[in-house]
Amino acid sequence: MARILTLTLNPALDLTVRLARLEPGEVNRSETLLTHAAGKGVNVAQVLADLGHQLTVGGFLGADNPQAFDALIARRGFADAFIRVPGETRSNIKIAEQDGRVTDINAPGPQVSEQAQQALLNQLTLIAPGHDAVVVAGSLPRGVSAQWLHHVLVQLKGLGLKVALDTSGEALRAGLRAGPWLVKPNTEELADALDCPTDSLEQQRQAAQRLHAQGVEHVVVSHGADGVNWFSPTLALHATPPKVSVASTVGAGDSLLAGMLHGLLSGEAPEQTLRRATAIAAMAVTQIGFGISDDAQLAHLQSGVDVRPLTEQ
Amino acid sequence: MARILTLTLNPALDLTVRLARLEPGEVNRSETLLTHAAGKGVNVAQVLADLGHQLTVGGFLGADNPQAFDALIARRGFADAFIRVPGETRSNIKIAEQDGRVTDINAPGPQVSEQAQQALLNQLTLIAPGHDAVVVAGSLPRGVSAQWLHHVLVQLKGLGLKVALDTSGEALRAGLRAGPWLVKPNTEELADALDCPTDSLEQQRQAAQRLHAQGVEHVVVSHGADGVNWFSPTLALHATPPKVSVASTVGAGDSLLAGMLHGLLSGEAPEQTLRRATAIAAMAVTQIGFGISDDAQLAHLQSGVDVRPLTEQ
Repeated sequence: MARILTLTLNPALDLTVRLARLEPGEVNRSETLLTHAAGKGVNVAQVLADLGHQLTVGGFLGADNPQAFDALIARRGFADAFIRVPGETRSNIKIAEQDGRVTDINAPGPQVSEQAQQALLNQLTLIAPGHDAVVVAGSLPRGVSAQWLHHVLVQLKGLGLKVALDTSGEALRAGLRAGPWLVKPNTEELADALDCPTDSLEQQRQAAQRLHAQGVEHVVVSHGADGVNWFSPTLALHATPPKVSVASTVGAGDSLLAGMLHGLLSGEAPEQTLRRATAIAAMAVTQIGFGISDDAQLAHLQSGVDVRPLTEQ
Repeated sequence: MARILTLTLNPALDLTVRLARLEPGEVNRSETLLTHAAGKGVNVAQVLADLGHQLTVGGFLGADNPQAFDALIARRGFADAFIRVPGETRSNIKIAEQDGRVTDINAPGPQVSEQAQQALLNQLTLIAPGHDAVVVAGSLPRGVSAQWLHHVLVQLKGLGLKVALDTSGEALRAGLRAGPWLVKPNTEELADALDCPTDSLEQQRQAAQRLHAQGVEHVVVSHGADGVNWFSPTLALHATPPKVSVASTVGAGDSLLAGMLHGLLSGEAPEQTLRRATAIAAMAVTQIGFGISDDAQLAHLQSGVDVRPLTEQ
């Protein structure tokens, strides 16, 4: 069991509305409205908790609507390292219709002051020594610069933590310069961050080598249903998930990241690490939510994952 | 200053999302998402507080998302008589586009147990003696019957309170049988509750006489921009509001009801009561929200209200 901190700098309250059919301009009646605490770091924490690890969750949380987060933190027994900021955590509305169409309406989050950013840095300095690894995941809230994220990652590294980063755009560019231990971009995010094509395997390998040279040990490139490429200075593996029927891809990438951390921090063999991580992501896809609800199903999915060295392709 | 209790049996959390244009099936970015505590009784309470009265608010509130209500209650200095029930208060999403189109998505509320209904009855028995009047407003939540509403109104009357009722459908039918002191239906609600046409003035007068015979003293029939007809055993008045530019009709009916209560409980002359109530409703229409934010504007609107005996029409 590892002690892992996840940071969600821009969490969201997901409001999922189900209704027969959305009629714009009309009064619609929804069947259900479910509210849940979301955000990449929070999602990763839940899967890692399912895998038996001890979690601390942190980042910035709007002070005016913390309930769903407070309830999740209490229910899962997480340590709470969130800095409360004035205003409401952003709400992302998902309108799901009977025919499968989904309409998203994503709100801007609260503005995070320099004072709050300093408070989080102070908090991290205090609590980091109690952890083995930190996951920094998701987008940046208003008021927080990519440069500040870089500074946080450097500080976390300096405190002796293995740093896993899952973000995109300018935040990923700046974060990569800090040389995190592990990154998990998809092909587009990697191409965008390095400003070079990453379509072919050879291009990905070169991108990974550039990142290794910057101090990034593990480059995990996700391709959705096509699987995962994992590059480290000593290995290059590909995993193809079994075919599953897709209920929702929400949390699939977060599940992959959690699975990779689990294997790496537990000292498992690389093939087994990648196999289980790929199966956990596939399992997320079969659910409306995500998480490891059924060990037998996970074992079955694992046996359906094809793992092979990338040189063989 | 009167001491007034308002009961909102089925309150709602209004989530107002503003965005340029809603594209179904796409990821939309909203400009703002505002959450506020709503429900007819809660709205009436706010306007009555603006008019200087002392308010207690009650009804059933979901225990899992009370924050917006708790904050409103604290900010306005209301006494809190809400019974907390398991689950979430329903959320009504309003999606407002730049071109003025509004899409509503209304969720079902929590199920209210018989135990919670009994708890509210017990609560009312305790607190009613401290109040001059009670406003029962809005729809019934799941689990609450129209018959139970009737029972509550009979009990409140028995406790010596003036009972004002603003609801519709089966709840209004059952409520009318309790002979409340004041009702405020619109034309359609009145026709539906009495199962008779109320289109002409003569039909409305007959409907009001039926209600007077059942013990209803004040019948206030709202017609939107066309104004208000007020029937009591001793008077029949009509008020026409001044023409105003419409920002939102949210809370206009609740403002009318609050204005009527204010005049009646303060012992004002009927013409002045109806004039001010009509002006407060018109003021609500000029706002995105409602309430008395500007006394000078209210005075100006009052001077534009035309009040005349209904016999003159």
